[in-house]
Amino acid sequence: MKSFIHVEPESHFPIQNLPYGVFRPLGDNRARVGAAIGEFVLDLSVIDKAGYFKGTAVEGREVINQESLNAFMGLGKKAWQEVRAIIQGLLREDTADLRDNASLRKEALLPQKNVELLLPVEIGDYTDFYASKEHATNVGTMFRGKENALMPNWTHLPVGYHGRCSSVVLSGTDICRPNGQKKPKNDASPVFGPSEQLDIELEMGWFIGPGNELGQPISIDKAEEHIFGLVLVNDWSARDIQTWEYQPLGPFLSKSFATSISPWVIPLEALEPFRVSGPNQNPEPLPYLKKEGENSFDINLEVSLKTKNEKSPQKIISTNFKFLYWSMAQQISHHTIAGCNLRPGDLHASGTISGPEKEQRGSLLELTWRGTDPIVLENGETREWLEDEDQVMITGWCQGDGFRVGFGEVKGCILPAKEQPQQNKSSDNKILRTNI
Amino acid sequence: MKSFIHVEPESHFPIQNLPYGVFRPLGDNRARVGAAIGEFVLDLSVIDKAGYFKGTAVEGREVINQESLNAFMGLGKKAWQEVRAIIQGLLREDTADLRDNASLRKEALLPQKNVELLLPVEIGDYTDFYASKEHATNVGTMFRGKENALMPNWTHLPVGYHGRCSSVVLSGTDICRPNGQKKPKNDASPVFGPSEQLDIELEMGWFIGPGNELGQPISIDKAEEHIFGLVLVNDWSARDIQTWEYQPLGPFLSKSFATSISPWVIPLEALEPFRVSGPNQNPEPLPYLKKEGENSFDINLEVSLKTKNEKSPQKIISTNFKFLYWSMAQQISHHTIAGCNLRPGDLHASGTISGPEKEQRGSLLELTWRGTDPIVLENGETREWLEDEDQVMITGWCQGDGFRVGFGEVKGCILPAKEQPQQNKSSDNKILRTNI
Repeated sequence: MKSFIHVEPESHFPIQNLPYGVFRPLGDNRARVGAAIGEFVLDLSVIDKAGYFKGTAVEGREVINQESLNAFMGLGKKAWQEVRAIIQGLLREDTADLRDNASLRKEALLPQKNVELLLPVEIGDYTDFYASKEHATNVGTMFRGKENALMPNWTHLPVGYHGRCSSVVLSGTDICRPNGQKKPKNDASPVFGPSEQLDIELEMGWFIGPGNELGQPISIDKAEEHIFGLVLVNDWSARDIQTWEYQPLGPFLSKSFATSISPWVIPLEALEPFRVSGPNQNPEPLPYLKKEGENSFDINLEVSLKTKNEKSPQKIISTNFKFLYWSMAQQISHHTIAGCNLRPGDLHASGTISGPEKEQRGSLLELTWRGTDPIVLENGETREWLEDEDQVMITGWCQGDGFRVGFGEVKGCILPAKEQPQQNKSSDNKILRTNI
Repeated sequence: MKSFIHVEPESHFPIQNLPYGVFRPLGDNRARVGAAIGEFVLDLSVIDKAGYFKGTAVEGREVINQESLNAFMGLGKKAWQEVRAIIQGLLREDTADLRDNASLRKEALLPQKNVELLLPVEIGDYTDFYASKEHATNVGTMFRGKENALMPNWTHLPVGYHGRCSSVVLSGTDICRPNGQKKPKNDASPVFGPSEQLDIELEMGWFIGPGNELGQPISIDKAEEHIFGLVLVNDWSARDIQTWEYQPLGPFLSKSFATSISPWVIPLEALEPFRVSGPNQNPEPLPYLKKEGENSFDINLEVSLKTKNEKSPQKIISTNFKFLYWSMAQQISHHTIAGCNLRPGDLHASGTISGPEKEQRGSLLELTWRGTDPIVLENGETREWLEDEDQVMITGWCQGDGFRVGFGEVKGCILPAKEQPQQNKSSDNKILRTNI
């Protein structure tokens, strides 16, 4: 399938992808829903107004001309399929409607460089899982030793915890190095100051479409019907703060200072050609977590780092979504088994995705083995943890035959920590926050 | 100060209180903001329409005729003070405006029994702390032994974690016993089934008014200005599920099946006469957590239990908010110190509030010492954990001179667990959820 819009084979946004986002044309305050195609955004509010969604589940519902994807996501799979089929049809090289209508094309197709992308979803709850066995094993080995690396529960259930919604930010937002309590090994008491072990976590996230009622678990066979689409996630982590705070209730301030997501939400349907089996699961999961078949996806994932002294980003991690032990369906089914209700717009993230090889480790914590084995960059610089002005980019894509279904990127630059706040003095620093 | 509306001395809602809630008159679909006075609700949308808020910060802002308190909460302390002063003035026995205007009184004052109370706030993020030293010590002793009862971080920072927003429900909502994975001590593998260690947690919660920008901590001296008001919280907990799942990332499904809150939000200003000092803090907190003065409140808290065989509820716990080691201000300041942003409508809860005496322990876990020392009810029944059809009520109040500033109650009844969901079969049970 080809579009009348020229798309390079390496582009992340061919007609086979068509991810959804929320954008504002520069100089226009009204946010609306769009789909990416090559270097363009298709303004779906224009397509809607032109009547192309007549007869579908979105007709008359005002779900497209919106500041978030939530309303569209809540409609469910049938509506998503209908809209996707119509958009894909309109963009095909052999469809004249849009191709040959210069004024509609001008109104509906905007160069991406002329729009501002916004956080695409109002996130009601954000859950972060811990679904990579290699990651859990690496971290457990460092913190508790090889014998106690995996907690006894790990192979029986997808461990997860509630994350912070308010600080989920769009790719491109600068990340301010957090201050906090840290406990140096040989000190009797904690000290206060900027985190010195600032890290990334390479994750993928998925947005929930239709939710479930409180007390009504989602069965594993229906779980994927609740997934609208996927994004890249960088779960920035301050390891020194985390080490001191996390027991017994889990990470808190070490994560809640920022979580970055990529702007385009890739529909689950676009990933169907890239289904693969996940890892073999042993012990056998309990019945509510059992699902035969291909429950994972072959998604290449890469992390690049650019220090202020480097000319170009350098790849430091190369891994794959398919390494995840627990599938998205298992994570959703587990999340709801005790009765917890999901809602449209909830974000689930996988936890750090690591593979069996060293370059497949999805965090600096694992890559440098807690700072004991620094990575060496091409220009000779070394890194144990992130330094100020470091830029981190995560990208991901599925490789098709002559095309890529890609995720774009999620990036962020580290800014120096704010001055330590004085007691009895309110902070009046300016906000350090920029958009993509 | 007295109102022209008769209020019994034991009522929770005298003119000194005036808590805010969201309600719908029976037979009317429009939700709006109200204040409780005695047995009545003052419909603030009527007071607003009648022009009484002219010249205040709420004028022309449409924050009262709303389905949630969020917009009003976001305006900040000055607006809250103005509105409270006007309402209090209108309800005084020596003010004629409302007292002598029969038609306005009829429109604005509705018997509470003729309205449906709704969840008063759209909760963006919910954070649950662990701020009672007695509770943390009791739990730690049971799970890790006396020597390791308190983690080393506990006396240095208010431990907290992110809770689940979607399953915060209003008082009166039935609580369905959750299913989940449990690991019997002598079994090699976990088993699946209904929780057999269903518990309560007596907590108090506070709603955040104005928030802070990402990266801009709230200094401890300004922290209380961000508190709109307080509610009672019952953080239902499934201890067997919790024991198996909580390491290393904290409680998840053992709590996310339901958290109940009371419907009336008591303004911080109404609690001012009941300020007291909190416990002595040793070691001295780091500067960003230091605040002299009276940072706690004398709030009596009680839990009653009514089994299906009992005629009337029986008091099983009697404790006080003032036992909390970490103050609300300290919890807010800590929450934001690494940069996390709060937003209007965020809910913070204290964690279980226990005192030094046995009857002051705020959970069955502590009261029955993990089921080893069951409580004996007046009719001879015993309880290690909650049983089906048990009703739990939490109440709280500050005792003034001839009046009470009370919190009403938060209650819930335990329903039997749903049948274990079958694989390959979607659940189609009816929703078990009722309102107050």
